[in-house]
Amino acid sequence: MIVHIVLLNWNDSATPEQIDELAGALRALPGAIPEIEAYDVGPDLGIRGTADFAVVGRFADEEAFWTYINHPDHQAVAATIGELAAGRNTAQFTA
Amino acid sequence: MIVHIVLLNWNDSATPEQIDELAGALRALPGAIPEIEAYDVGPDLGIRGTADFAVVGRFADEEAFWTYINHPDHQAVAATIGELAAGRNTAQFTA
Repeated sequence: MIVHIVLLNWNDSATPEQIDELAGALRALPGAIPEIEAYDVGPDLGIRGTADFAVVGRFADEEAFWTYINHPDHQAVAATIGELAAGRNTAQFTA
Repeated sequence: MIVHIVLLNWNDSATPEQIDELAGALRALPGAIPEIEAYDVGPDLGIRGTADFAVVGRFADEEAFWTYINHPDHQAVAATIGELAAGRNTAQFTA
């Protein structure tokens, strides 16, 4: 199992509406990409966090992960993240 | 459910042995802290990651999360992380 983590910090011009729309687009990805085995998305709760928003996804293997990365729906979401995020930290590890 | 994410970047003096020992101490935490419902720990695979190491934990609620944070075994591990990590990014969100 590959665990995929993304932590985001929003830039100053990101609006709550844009962030909500992005969250909705992220949450729609499992419906479009069957390789996503689990996918949790949400804003940081403000308890001890340094990031504003987090994504945790699970994939059976690296091939499934790359299928997700290359899927046009994910690429569209990633482009939006590129516009809204000032900081992006990510890791993939085996669990 | 509270999802707890930590992404770490090691400092220059962190040795592979120290990192392995830390990973072992992290993996031992669920045995000591029953509030940990799930806990995945591991080094970044080097595919698209910006962090060196990741932890993903799950807790039933915020009270369980704080019990974990305040537990002496977790505090010992957190102190070691403080010594080995140059960067630490974290988020807690509801899933």
